[in-house]
Amino acid sequence: MIRAGIIGATGYAGGELVRLLAGHKEAEIVWYGSHSYIDKKYYEVYRNMFRIVEDVCRDDNLSELAEQADVIFTATPQGFLAGVLTEEILNKVKIIDLSADYRIKDVAVYEQWYGIEHKSPQFIQEAVYGLCELNRSQITGSTRLIANPGCYTTCSILTAYPLVKEGMIDAGTLIVDAKSGTSGAGRGAKVPNLFCEVNENMKAYGVASHRHTPEIEEQLGYAGNCRVTINFTPHLVPMNRGILVTEYADLKRKADGTLPSWDEVKAVYDRYYGDEKFVRVLEKGCCPETKWVEGSNYVDIGFVVDERTGRVIMMGALDNLVKGAAGQAVQNMNLLFGLKESEGLELVPCFP
Amino acid sequence: MIRAGIIGATGYAGGELVRLLAGHKEAEIVWYGSHSYIDKKYYEVYRNMFRIVEDVCRDDNLSELAEQADVIFTATPQGFLAGVLTEEILNKVKIIDLSADYRIKDVAVYEQWYGIEHKSPQFIQEAVYGLCELNRSQITGSTRLIANPGCYTTCSILTAYPLVKEGMIDAGTLIVDAKSGTSGAGRGAKVPNLFCEVNENMKAYGVASHRHTPEIEEQLGYAGNCRVTINFTPHLVPMNRGILVTEYADLKRKADGTLPSWDEVKAVYDRYYGDEKFVRVLEKGCCPETKWVEGSNYVDIGFVVDERTGRVIMMGALDNLVKGAAGQAVQNMNLLFGLKESEGLELVPCFP
Amino acid sequence: MIRAGIIGATGYAGGELVRLLAGHKEAEIVWYGSHSYIDKKYYEVYRNMFRIVEDVCRDDNLSELAEQADVIFTATPQGFLAGVLTEEILNKVKIIDLSADYRIKDVAVYEQWYGIEHKSPQFIQEAVYGLCELNRSQITGSTRLIANPGCYTTCSILTAYPLVKEGMIDAGTLIVDAKSGTSGAGRGAKVPNLFCEVNENMKAYGVASHRHTPEIEEQLGYAGNCRVTINFTPHLVPMNRGILVTEYADLKRKADGTLPSWDEVKAVYDRYYGDEKFVRVLEKGCCPETKWVEGSNYVDIGFVVDERTGRVIMMGALDNLVKGAAGQAVQNMNLLFGLKESEGLELVPCFP
Amino acid sequence: MIRAGIIGATGYAGGELVRLLAGHKEAEIVWYGSHSYIDKKYYEVYRNMFRIVEDVCRDDNLSELAEQADVIFTATPQGFLAGVLTEEILNKVKIIDLSADYRIKDVAVYEQWYGIEHKSPQFIQEAVYGLCELNRSQITGSTRLIANPGCYTTCSILTAYPLVKEGMIDAGTLIVDAKSGTSGAGRGAKVPNLFCEVNENMKAYGVASHRHTPEIEEQLGYAGNCRVTINFTPHLVPMNRGILVTEYADLKRKADGTLPSWDEVKAVYDRYYGDEKFVRVLEKGCCPETKWVEGSNYVDIGFVVDERTGRVIMMGALDNLVKGAAGQAVQNMNLLFGLKESEGLELVPCFP
Repeated sequence: MIRAGIIGATGYAGGELVRLLAGHKEAEIVWYGSHSYIDKKYYEVYRNMFRIVEDVCRDDNLSELAEQADVIFTATPQGFLAGVLTEEILNKVKIIDLSADYRIKDVAVYEQWYGIEHKSPQFIQEAVYGLCELNRSQITGSTRLIANPGCYTTCSILTAYPLVKEGMIDAGTLIVDAKSGTSGAGRGAKVPNLFCEVNENMKAYGVASHRHTPEIEEQLGYAGNCRVTINFTPHLVPMNRGILVTEYADLKRKADGTLPSWDEVKAVYDRYYGDEKFVRVLEKGCCPETKWVEGSNYVDIGFVVDERTGRVIMMGALDNLVKGAAGQAVQNMNLLFGLKESEGLELVPCFP
Repeated sequence: MIRAGIIGATGYAGGELVRLLAGHKEAEIVWYGSHSYIDKKYYEVYRNMFRIVEDVCRDDNLSELAEQADVIFTATPQGFLAGVLTEEILNKVKIIDLSADYRIKDVAVYEQWYGIEHKSPQFIQEAVYGLCELNRSQITGSTRLIANPGCYTTCSILTAYPLVKEGMIDAGTLIVDAKSGTSGAGRGAKVPNLFCEVNENMKAYGVASHRHTPEIEEQLGYAGNCRVTINFTPHLVPMNRGILVTEYADLKRKADGTLPSWDEVKAVYDRYYGDEKFVRVLEKGCCPETKWVEGSNYVDIGFVVDERTGRVIMMGALDNLVKGAAGQAVQNMNLLFGLKESEGLELVPCFP
Repeated sequence: MIRAGIIGATGYAGGELVRLLAGHKEAEIVWYGSHSYIDKKYYEVYRNMFRIVEDVCRDDNLSELAEQADVIFTATPQGFLAGVLTEEILNKVKIIDLSADYRIKDVAVYEQWYGIEHKSPQFIQEAVYGLCELNRSQITGSTRLIANPGCYTTCSILTAYPLVKEGMIDAGTLIVDAKSGTSGAGRGAKVPNLFCEVNENMKAYGVASHRHTPEIEEQLGYAGNCRVTINFTPHLVPMNRGILVTEYADLKRKADGTLPSWDEVKAVYDRYYGDEKFVRVLEKGCCPETKWVEGSNYVDIGFVVDERTGRVIMMGALDNLVKGAAGQAVQNMNLLFGLKESEGLELVPCFP
Repeated sequence: MIRAGIIGATGYAGGELVRLLAGHKEAEIVWYGSHSYIDKKYYEVYRNMFRIVEDVCRDDNLSELAEQADVIFTATPQGFLAGVLTEEILNKVKIIDLSADYRIKDVAVYEQWYGIEHKSPQFIQEAVYGLCELNRSQITGSTRLIANPGCYTTCSILTAYPLVKEGMIDAGTLIVDAKSGTSGAGRGAKVPNLFCEVNENMKAYGVASHRHTPEIEEQLGYAGNCRVTINFTPHLVPMNRGILVTEYADLKRKADGTLPSWDEVKAVYDRYYGDEKFVRVLEKGCCPETKWVEGSNYVDIGFVVDERTGRVIMMGALDNLVKGAAGQAVQNMNLLFGLKESEGLELVPCFP
C-alpha cells in the first residue's frame, strides 16, 4: 500500500485528490495537511466525506511528512514547495507538485510571470513535466519530482500537440481561447468568486498576461522544436467544473496547394492518441462538451478544417479538477510506482 | 457475471444505470433498450459514453430480452411494464421496475393518482417495495419483481421513518416540502424544462396532487401502523441533480410533558440507521446539502427540535438519479443476487 | 427633487436602490455612502453603473448626510443605525432603514434574536413598519422613521395576511418553508457563498432560529389579533434573485363542516389585494414562480385548498432585492413624500 | 402614439419587445401575433405579464396587421417575412425584421448559408441594415424596411468596427470567438436546450458554418472597404442572457515599427463611440462582463494590446435580447419615427 500525504488537502484540488485516492486500491492517505484547518476533522471541511474520512487535518510540515509517506502531493500556492524543498526530503519521498514551481525550465521566465523569486531552482532540471501522454517514458521509479501540469495547460497542449509536433500547423499563428468553470479559481473567499458575481455572467480575465501562457509555449515549443508565442485568453464560466479550449491556427497546405482533409488531420491525432486511454478524439462533426468528461480523467478533442480561412479550429475539453489537477496527479503516481496507469481513474463521466 | 438488460436506457435514470453498471464487477449490460433510438449507437445518445460503450440501442421487446438476461431494469413510463409483464417472463428473469407500476398495493389508489388502468394487477402483491433499508429481508434470491421506489419517495420516507415507526411524532401532522433538481423531470423536450425557463427560477408544482404522495403515505402507514395522510409539495430547483426534503411534524411529548431532546431523537435514528452504509445521520447543528451526496448512493439526514413550536424539522438529501433511482436499483440487484450490497455503489460524493 | 442619501450603497440592496433611483423622476442620489470603498468611484464597485453614475463613494457620517438630504436609506448591518440615530437627525431628515433595528416593537425580542443590545430603543415605537400594503395609512408626511421589512418577511406576511386577518386559518398551525436566491446573503466574501459552494446545491439554514421569524410572528399577530408562533425555515437556492415561500396552515371549516372553496378563499384575497398594484393573486391552478417577478416590485400569490388534509397551501414569490428590499424602500419614500406610490417602480418583470 | 404590431410575439425576442414597449411612452402594441398560441391570453404564455398585458394572441396575418399598425416587428423564423412581404404592405407600414431575411445584400450568399430560397429578393437593396451606430443616417422617416442585425453580429461588428474602419488591424487575421447565453437558442422544445443538457456544460457549435458569419464579414467589409473572411465560433454558455465576444487580430505597426499604444487605440474607439449613448468603451485594465449590461441596451467594449504577439484582443459584451434583438429594434423604431433615440431604452443594467 502506497502511503500518500497531501499538503493543501482542503483546497478544491486537494479535495479531489482525497476523492480519487479514496477509490484507489493501492494507495492510502496518511496525512491531510491543511494550513487553515489544523486539528479540525477533515469531514467538517468537506461534509461529503462524512463517514468516509475520519482523520483530522494536520499542518504542512513537509520534513515530518517525508518520514511517513511514500509520495507527497503538494496542492499549495506558488512558491510554497520551492521554499521548503530539500535534497534530504527528495531522498526520502517522491513529490508530485500541483503548483507551478517546477513546471518552467527557465527560472527567469518563471520569476517574470509569477512575480516571485524561485527559492530552489536547483531542482528545476530534475523535475519531470508530468503530462503523462507526452512524457510517460520519463516518469519512472527513479523519478523524484513531478511538476504536475496546470488545468488550462493540460487541455491547451494536448489539443494542439500532434499538429504542432507533426508540423501541420504554423505554430506562430496559434491562438488559444479558453473557458473554465469556477473551481479553477480555488476556495478562497473573494468577492469576484461569489455566486452572485459569477452566476449569469461571463468574462475574460488575465488577457495576454495569464501565468499558464509560458507553460503552454514551452511545451509546444519542445513539440515543434521551435519557439512558440501564443495568445492565451482564459474566461470564467458559470459552472463548477470543466475547461473548454478553442484553438485556432493556420493549417499548412500540402505540396499540391490544398489543405489537409479532416481525415488526414484525424490520422495524425490517431497516431498520437489512438492508444491513449484518457484522450478521446471525437468523430467528425462532434464538438467536445465539458459535461461529457465531468468527474472523469478524459480529455475529449475535436476539430474542424475550415476551407474558407485555411485554419483548423481545434477544441478540447476536460475536468479541471481531474485530468487538469488531481486525476493527472494520480496518473503520475501510478506511473512512478509502476502501477496500472488507470488505477483509481476508471471514472465514468457523470451526465447530467 | 450477471447479465443485465435495460429498457429505457436513454432516459436520465437509464443513463445513470449504465454509468453505475459500467463500474460494477459482477454485472454486464447485454441490452440497451431505447424506443426512441433503436439502432443508434448508445454513445451517440450520451457522448460521455464514447469509447466506454460500443453497443447499439435496441427495442423494448421484454420477452426477447428475458431470454438473454438475468435481470431487467425497466426505466419506462408509467403503465408500460404493467402492460407487457407476464408470468412467463417473471419465470425467466428478475425485474427491477423503476416506474410506479407495482409500488402501490391498492390498485384503486394507483389508478386514481395515475389516471390509467392497471393492466396486470395480479403481480402487485408479489412485488417487493425495494426500499432496501426498510425491506431488506424481503429482497432475496426468490424475489421476482422489485418495485423500485421513486426519488421523492425514497428521500421523504427515509427521513421520517424512524420517528414514525417509534411513534415519536404525530403522523397526522406530517408535512413534506420537497425540492428537486431538474433531471427528475426527465429528458423529454418540453418548454417548461428548457434551460431558460428553469434557470434563475423556482416554483412549486403538483401541489396537493403529486403522484408520489400516496406512495409516501402507504409506506409510512406501514411503519406507523396507522393511516397516514400528508401534504407533499414538490418544487423545481435550478440544478441538475439532488433532492432535499424538509419535513415538519409535531413531536409527541414525553410522560413528564417535555419534548424529547435532540440526543434522544438522534438515538432513535441511530437505532435504525446506525449500521446502514448509505444513510448518514448528521451531527448536531448540521443540515444536509444536496451537493454532499451528489453522484453517490448516500442519503444524508439531519433534524432540529424546535422547543418553541413543539415540532421536529427533519431534513433529508439524496441524489435523485442514484439513491433516488439507479443506485437503489443496483442495490436491489445486489440483494437479489446475494452480492455485497454496496458492490458498484462505493461512490464518493463529488464536490464541488 | 428629493435629495436621497444611501448609507451602505455598495451592498446588493444598496446597489439596487441606486438602480431604482436612477429611474426615479422625483429623486436624485446625493450621497453614496460606503464604509469599504470611500473615495472610490461608485462605478468601479458596480461596473454596470459605468457612464451612469459618476460620483465617488463617501463615508457613513449620518449627521453630515442629514444636512444634505431629504431622505436617508440605511442598508447597513444590524445595530448600525440604532447606534448612531439621534433626535436631531430625525428632525432634519426622514430615514428608511433596511436593517432590522426598528422592525420589532419588543426590544427584548430583538435583543434575543439578534444577540446585540439595542442602542436607541426610544425610537422603536415611533418607527412605522413599512409594509406598504398593510400600513399605508401610517406612512405619511409626518412619519420620520420607516422600518423597511425584511425580504423573507415581506413575502411570508403578504402571502398569509388576508387569511390570518379574516380568521380563515388556524394561525397556530402555520408553517413557512422559504427558499431564497443568494443575493439575500449579501456581498460579503465568505466561503459558503462562493459560486462553487452554492451552485448545484441546496440546503436549509437557520432552522428554527432565523431572525426573520419574530418579525413575521409579530406582524401576523397584529393581523390575527392573537399570539402567533410559527416554524420558519429558510433555504438557499442556486439563483441570484428571488424568494419563494410555501406556507401551510389548517383551514377553518365553515359552519356546515365543509372547507371553504378555492373561490371563497380567493374572494378573501381579492378583498385585500384586489386594488393593490404590486400584489398579484394568480388564477386557479397557477403557482407563482420567482422568474415571473424578477427585477420588479411585484409579489405573486397563489394557493391550493387540499380537501384531503384540510390545509391550504399558500405560495408567494417576490424579488428579494426589489419588493424585498430596495423597491419597497422606494415605495415607502413615495408614500412619505406624497408621490405616486409606483413612481420609479413601474418595472416589467424580466423573462427569461 | 405609434401603433406597433409584433409577429412572433411569444418567442424570447418577441417577449422582450413586449417588455420594452410596455415602458415606451410613444408606442403601444396593437397586435400580439403568435402562430402557436392564437386566441390564448398573452399572459398565459408569459406569466410575468399578468395584470400588465390583457390582450390575446392573434395570427400572423401581415396584410391585415398592416392596416392597423404604423410599424411591424417580425421576430419570425428565417424565410417567413421574405415569403409574405409585398410592395403593398411596405406602402402602408414600416417593417423592422428581426430575422435574417434582408440582412445580406448578396442573395446567393444568403441562400448558401441559410439553405433556403429567398422569395422576395427585390426588397433586399432597399432594406437598411439596422445597426444604428453605423447606419444612423440611413434610418429615417422614409425608410420602409429595416434588417435588424443578429445578436452575435451586433456584438462582433461593434467590437471591431473602429479598428477595421481605420485600418488599424489586418482584417484578414480577424478571429471572433463568441459565447452566448441560451436564450439565443429560442424557446423551441429541443433536447439540447433542456436545463440538464446546458447547465454545468459548455460547448462550441456551428464551427466554421454559423449563419452569422457572412453578416459579420459583409459589414466589416464595408467598413474596411475590402473583402473580409473570418473565423467565427459561437459557444453555448449556461446562462440565460448575454453575449461575450473575444476577437483577435494583428495590429498594424506604425511607421516606426512599433505597435500602437493602448491610448492610441482607445483614441480611435473614442472617435467613433465617444458620443454614443449605448456603446461604452471601458477603461484600461477592464474587461467587459455580460452581467454589467444585462437587461440594458448597452454594449461594453474593452481591449488589450499584446506586445508579445503583436495582436490586439478586443472584447465586447451585450444582452442578446436587448441590444442584440429587441432593444436595437426599438432603437430603430425611434429613429424611423423621429423620436429620441433612447426612448424606452433608458434601462439601467441589473446587477446581480
